[in-house]
Amino acid sequence: MSKQVHSREVRKAALERLAERGVTVQDIAEIVFLMQSPYHPQLTMEPCIASVHAVLEKREIQHAILVGVELDILAEKGLLSEPLQSIIASDEGLFGCDETLAIGSVFGYGSIAVTTFGHLDKQKIGIIRKLDNKASGRVHTFLDDLVASVAANASSRMAHRLRDEQEAEMDAKAQAQQTLDNTDEQAG
Amino acid sequence: MSKQVHSREVRKAALERLAERGVTVQDIAEIVFLMQSPYHPQLTMEPCIASVHAVLEKREIQHAILVGVELDILAEKGLLSEPLQSIIASDEGLFGCDETLAIGSVFGYGSIAVTTFGHLDKQKIGIIRKLDNKASGRVHTFLDDLVASVAANASSRMAHRLRDEQEAEMDAKAQAQQTLDNTDEQAG
Amino acid sequence: MSKQVHSREVRKAALERLAERGVTVQDIAEIVFLMQSPYHPQLTMEPCIASVHAVLEKREIQHAILVGVELDILAEKGLLSEPLQSIIASDEGLFGCDETLAIGSVFGYGSIAVTTFGHLDKQKIGIIRKLDNKASGRVHTFLDDLVASVAANASSRMAHRLRDEQEAEMDAKAQAQQTLDNTDEQAG
Amino acid sequence: MSKQVHSREVRKAALERLAERGVTVQDIAEIVFLMQSPYHPQLTMEPCIASVHAVLEKREIQHAILVGVELDILAEKGLLSEPLQSIIASDEGLFGCDETLAIGSVFGYGSIAVTTFGHLDKQKIGIIRKLDNKASGRVHTFLDDLVASVAANASSRMAHRLRDEQEAEMDAKAQAQQTLDNTDEQAG
Repeated sequence: MSKQVHSREVRKAALERLAERGVTVQDIAEIVFLMQSPYHPQLTMEPCIASVHAVLEKREIQHAILVGVELDILAEKGLLSEPLQSIIASDEGLFGCDETLAIGSVFGYGSIAVTTFGHLDKQKIGIIRKLDNKASGRVHTFLDDLVASVAANASSRMAHRLRDEQEAEMDAKAQAQQTLDNTDEQAG
Repeated sequence: MSKQVHSREVRKAALERLAERGVTVQDIAEIVFLMQSPYHPQLTMEPCIASVHAVLEKREIQHAILVGVELDILAEKGLLSEPLQSIIASDEGLFGCDETLAIGSVFGYGSIAVTTFGHLDKQKIGIIRKLDNKASGRVHTFLDDLVASVAANASSRMAHRLRDEQEAEMDAKAQAQQTLDNTDEQAG
Repeated sequence: MSKQVHSREVRKAALERLAERGVTVQDIAEIVFLMQSPYHPQLTMEPCIASVHAVLEKREIQHAILVGVELDILAEKGLLSEPLQSIIASDEGLFGCDETLAIGSVFGYGSIAVTTFGHLDKQKIGIIRKLDNKASGRVHTFLDDLVASVAANASSRMAHRLRDEQEAEMDAKAQAQQTLDNTDEQAG
Repeated sequence: MSKQVHSREVRKAALERLAERGVTVQDIAEIVFLMQSPYHPQLTMEPCIASVHAVLEKREIQHAILVGVELDILAEKGLLSEPLQSIIASDEGLFGCDETLAIGSVFGYGSIAVTTFGHLDKQKIGIIRKLDNKASGRVHTFLDDLVASVAANASSRMAHRLRDEQEAEMDAKAQAQQTLDNTDEQAG
């Protein structure tokens, strides 16, 4: 009866949902930059944007975006049954399914991602703060956590990559020094 | 604008959703019994039922039931937007938000609960197998994982309680022996 | 060969380890107070202390404390094998087993606990900051995360309890009003 | 004081620990094969081995192996303090830090990995059963869970990859058909 959905459609739909709800890759990359620049003073926006794109390629995250934004929109339109409608529409403090759904994809990037997620969830930095503004009449109960999750994942991914690069550089230097030493020896 | 929902309403709604979708406390307690009876040969159904009731008192689990069953029902009625509608209606193999939502509440009962959940999810025991039967025309993509989660939590909770009771019994015996020894000493 | 360890011994050992490493229940309760007082202006230290005690009763948390502090002490004495010795002694940034162990017990108290843990891990409030001070020559790689976990759990536990109390109060008031109305009616 | 450890050393040490404790990549790949072959009848051992190698490249998993095997060895030698020594040496049923440490790296591969891990933990398939044999006088309290975790991760990773390949194949066929149709049209 039901057809298998192609990954291409899932990815496309997830990115469209983010855009429709007012979240750009640039917005999320700015949070990543704020998180990582204290540890890497020469950081530019470019690798942050690349890291957000890489995280958004993950099926688990695309699925979480589709589910979370669907629930936000249904709540905005008043189409959920009670008491779930009131709980999501009011972003009720003890409701945790939004964080649970978002955390599920956070684990994918290790413990740095989990702690960064917790931090972003409390501090509400950048676009996350804008989404949290209830005055707008819009419901972003799930979306703000999903954005925090993507930003946390992209931060963690970048921290690991930057270490890899740093080590590769050190290896190259050691290699060069070694070659130099060998040359000296032979010359000496 | 939106009112705060009373816990009483949340609990009532969660239990009603389970009943409406054909799941009773007895069904879940039977899974708990199957999981724990190999370790405790004299186990009866009564503490299994009590343990399921205790788990269903948790806000996190009530919220997860409300969210999961809502999505199942909306998918059953064809009311979700694509491609989410097809993904949930077909219980797509790589879709993991159902397990994520259920696992979120599983953590509450420690690592025994997590491994029991994984086991139940694969083996589909008792009511979980019935829910998994796609022939029914109903959608239980989230519900089967929620039931596995409640059963896993109740199993873990009971394993901890049974240990506590066992220790209390040993303590009582040791105490009695001690009293006896003291009496002997005084008498001797 | 090996005897079953009584829960009483496990609990006693876990509390002793905390004390030996310079962490008191009061220290942890102060973090809980800082986390929850913005939401509950009339909060006193007493329920915070009670909540920390309740969390420390959990087997999963006692086990995590025993494992984490053991590894800290072994690293402090230089008794681990390399490269683990260097990784733990230096509290290496990309090492995540300390957070993983601590997070395991955080899940027990729901998503509020997870986000609070992430926040504390980044902000290093109160005793957590003192433990993080590497100048001391001591190794607290695991302990600071364990303390953050206990504090996060106690905060989450208290948030749920305070809601329950608030609702009970509202119920009592509604009940009293109802009685009053009935009396009026009968009187009228 | 403490030097930064190079990733190369961490990876090398983690693989050596597995080998020293009697676990080969082949052993783990055999579990992956058993898990995935029901869904993919033409599966060979080769991609299973490749998937295990890929998972073992992850820092989080290497760290978890170093920590877990260290604790197993220390318990085997009787070098831990009590009551932790007895708890780990007896693989005490309610001790969950072994699963917690292993689960931490399981999240990296999504919900399929978590449920597969739970299943392997209960069923004790292949090398996991051998490790669980307490008659050997060796302690593998952490190692059996770490192996289950690597196998679960490699299974989940492969499930996602196989879907990607299947879709790429379908796309290629559709593309070929399209070219054929266009040629027909132009020819017609």
